Amino acid sequence: MADDPTRADLKQLVDRIVASYIADDRTQHLDATFLPSRDKAIEIVSLLRRLIFPGFFDDQRLSSETARFAVGELLARVRSLLYEQVRQSLRYEENRTNGRGDDCNQCDQKAQRITDAFLNEIPEVRRKLALDIQAAHDGDPAAVSTDEAIFCYPGVFAVFVYRIAHELCRQQVPLLPRIMSEYAHAQTGVDIHPGAHIGESFFIDHATGVVIGQTARIGNNVQIYQGVTLGALAPKKAEAWRQQRRHPTIEDDVTIYPGATILGGDTVIGKGCTINGSVFLTQSVPAGHTVQIQHPQPQLRAKGTRKVAEKSDTKKNGL
Amino acid sequence: MADDPTRADLKQLVDRIVASYIADDRTQHLDATFLPSRDKAIEIVSLLRRLIFPGFFDDQRLSSETARFAVGELLARVRSLLYEQVRQSLRYEENRTNGRGDDCNQCDQKAQRITDAFLNEIPEVRRKLALDIQAAHDGDPAAVSTDEAIFCYPGVFAVFVYRIAHELCRQQVPLLPRIMSEYAHAQTGVDIHPGAHIGESFFIDHATGVVIGQTARIGNNVQIYQGVTLGALAPKKAEAWRQQRRHPTIEDDVTIYPGATILGGDTVIGKGCTINGSVFLTQSVPAGHTVQIQHPQPQLRAKGTRKVAEKSDTKKNGL
Amino acid sequence: MADDPTRADLKQLVDRIVASYIADDRTQHLDATFLPSRDKAIEIVSLLRRLIFPGFFDDQRLSSETARFAVGELLARVRSLLYEQVRQSLRYEENRTNGRGDDCNQCDQKAQRITDAFLNEIPEVRRKLALDIQAAHDGDPAAVSTDEAIFCYPGVFAVFVYRIAHELCRQQVPLLPRIMSEYAHAQTGVDIHPGAHIGESFFIDHATGVVIGQTARIGNNVQIYQGVTLGALAPKKAEAWRQQRRHPTIEDDVTIYPGATILGGDTVIGKGCTINGSVFLTQSVPAGHTVQIQHPQPQLRAKGTRKVAEKSDTKKNGL
Repeated sequence: MADDPTRADLKQLVDRIVASYIADDRTQHLDATFLPSRDKAIEIVSLLRRLIFPGFFDDQRLSSETARFAVGELLARVRSLLYEQVRQSLRYEENRTNGRGDDCNQCDQKAQRITDAFLNEIPEVRRKLALDIQAAHDGDPAAVSTDEAIFCYPGVFAVFVYRIAHELCRQQVPLLPRIMSEYAHAQTGVDIHPGAHIGESFFIDHATGVVIGQTARIGNNVQIYQGVTLGALAPKKAEAWRQQRRHPTIEDDVTIYPGATILGGDTVIGKGCTINGSVFLTQSVPAGHTVQIQHPQPQLRAKGTRKVAEKSDTKKNGL
Repeated sequence: MADDPTRADLKQLVDRIVASYIADDRTQHLDATFLPSRDKAIEIVSLLRRLIFPGFFDDQRLSSETARFAVGELLARVRSLLYEQVRQSLRYEENRTNGRGDDCNQCDQKAQRITDAFLNEIPEVRRKLALDIQAAHDGDPAAVSTDEAIFCYPGVFAVFVYRIAHELCRQQVPLLPRIMSEYAHAQTGVDIHPGAHIGESFFIDHATGVVIGQTARIGNNVQIYQGVTLGALAPKKAEAWRQQRRHPTIEDDVTIYPGATILGGDTVIGKGCTINGSVFLTQSVPAGHTVQIQHPQPQLRAKGTRKVAEKSDTKKNGL
Repeated sequence: MADDPTRADLKQLVDRIVASYIADDRTQHLDATFLPSRDKAIEIVSLLRRLIFPGFFDDQRLSSETARFAVGELLARVRSLLYEQVRQSLRYEENRTNGRGDDCNQCDQKAQRITDAFLNEIPEVRRKLALDIQAAHDGDPAAVSTDEAIFCYPGVFAVFVYRIAHELCRQQVPLLPRIMSEYAHAQTGVDIHPGAHIGESFFIDHATGVVIGQTARIGNNVQIYQGVTLGALAPKKAEAWRQQRRHPTIEDDVTIYPGATILGGDTVIGKGCTINGSVFLTQSVPAGHTVQIQHPQPQLRAKGTRKVAEKSDTKKNGL
């Protein structure tokens, strides 16, 4: 470097930074033995993707004969990594809530039970994902094959991570499911809280900008598009809301087009409804209805003029 | 681990998972010799970026003299990787459509022809990208230099990947172009189907949430902003739509502001039009017009009251 | 490969590509000794995250005793990397504006001064981030702890990178801050220009699709949601606009709900205002007001009919 500061300067800065750690424990995690690892969480997602979609994301090809060995090996790795991260998460939570992460032996036993229960669900998760992938193929005219959906579709990746994270959430694993779902959010622009309930054959097309809140409930055969929010009405105070239903219920066979916003824990979109683009809903819709808005009438103006075309002109102009 | 299950338990789980592979072939790709690799596709994009924008993304500096060697080396690597992935994609498609990937010798020759044809287009792709980058610089008041656009702009990265993927699409390479474009989508929030046709000097500002559908056609000097959708009207049945024009035509010199939605294969936005923010269009606009909506009138309410300000109050309040 | 082209063919292609470099210097950066590195910029962000949130993103656990050594080591690495990148950026800019990067010795001294000044600000950046994280926790009913906000929230990551990049911007480092902020944009869908001014206790919920322009000014205790744009009115000519205020002012204690758009350099949203979802504003709002729009009335239609429900029917239907 051009001009090295004295050692004293650097030492003083180290002191100031360490002092700032001590001064505010919201932004440090020192002396805390237990915390899940974001990198390991992402590694688990990546291994589970290979286990759940065999042959798609492997370096080497798999045959029916070699698959058994690959599964055995992947399973052993996932099991060990997942156990460790679930254990960290449980002990972390125990520490946070009553300061006793260190002597929580039952945390380890619980972590083992959860890990085994989760792995046992893999065939069922695969069954659900096959339906999601079929829904992606059937719902998108640009889809060439189900393989393409597995390989490329961000909506499929987001739902894959959701199904894993939700399973861990159901087993009451703290923090880890959120780390996974926010990883998917970063990859896809789809923010599904792992606590949400989502039925079978679910498809999100174009993905970016979708928000599905923690207490949302979605039925079977639901299809949604980019920019859809299933959100909460403005909270008075966050604290009072933490345990309540804040997000809507979407019944079976509903389609929600881009940019629609549906808010509120009492809002129920009935079976078979279609919600058109940009609709803003804070109340329920009975089954079997289409909901649309009169989009604001586009106004044409020839460049260089200030005159907005009259309705009759508009007609002529093809609007 | 706290409590190791018996080997019998693990073996049984392996059996169940393998059985679930056999039960549903939508979610496995076993015994399939041919499939492109997502990692290799991303590596190709990364090498092409160095080849197309020399000196910007290299570890070492390039001079006019050393550039020749760097080009020779990069070209050899891209050629070998691209040939392999195009070959995999062609044999994969041959397998998928008539089960004969294994004996498709013509696939290999076709892969070689496509690879060479693609590489020959690099100077032309570079010419187009220089125009795109100039458009980015000229269209954004915050841009300091064209270098900044190359280095930082997600819209430029999305268009770069589109131009590559579209070239492979034009050469009828299956699957690989979609893998590339969804990689760009994950990086930028811009979802451009590689099948779309986009003219010269194209700029997407702020990027996130843009969707450009498979059969869209965009002319020269078009600028679009975040959240713009060039999409399809709701399909009756996806299957019947697969071969049809479903997305709009945007003629030369059109600007489309944030959040505008333009839908339908018969919709043509004429030369020189300006489409303002949040406009929703499903019909054509003749050349040279500005299209705007009357945005819903904002209503002011002083906190603690329920009274919405009258129009006259609103004026006083500056609205 | 199936069919190797003659060496002559490859050589000719290398020639054509190199010729295309010479032909257009917008898309090459040859013979330019100085340019920051995107990879190094990302590495700096990653090291600063460990330095600023100790214990959260480290491979090994940190105790109060070992923290001092970790800080010392991280600080030395950041200092060296940052100095090098700031130096590259300054010399790059000197080259770009007057062709004299090579003999800019004062660039190196300036780089050292900036690096030291930046590192000295770390405790202050930490203080601000603690407030941002508290705001994230308090503003989101789904938040379980401040740790979760640090670990998972894309809005928190975006604000963290903004606070670093803004500090470098304030020190007039060219290019590097934009590389950092576009990295955060790619990770989170939040596009905050590092030139924007943002006060304390700032929270962005759900993140995706937020745009905050270069000359925006935001006060303390502001909370915004996904899809909010603080943007410029359509520029007549980008060039004339480069030095002007183009983006709005948001005063203290304002909340802006999803999809709201606020445009223009003269637009001031007064203290304590609430801007509801999808509001479109190009004029100022006095302090203490709620701004809402009458959302377009949703129209219900039973499937298979063309009749839109009357207002009275709508009531019955719960709308």
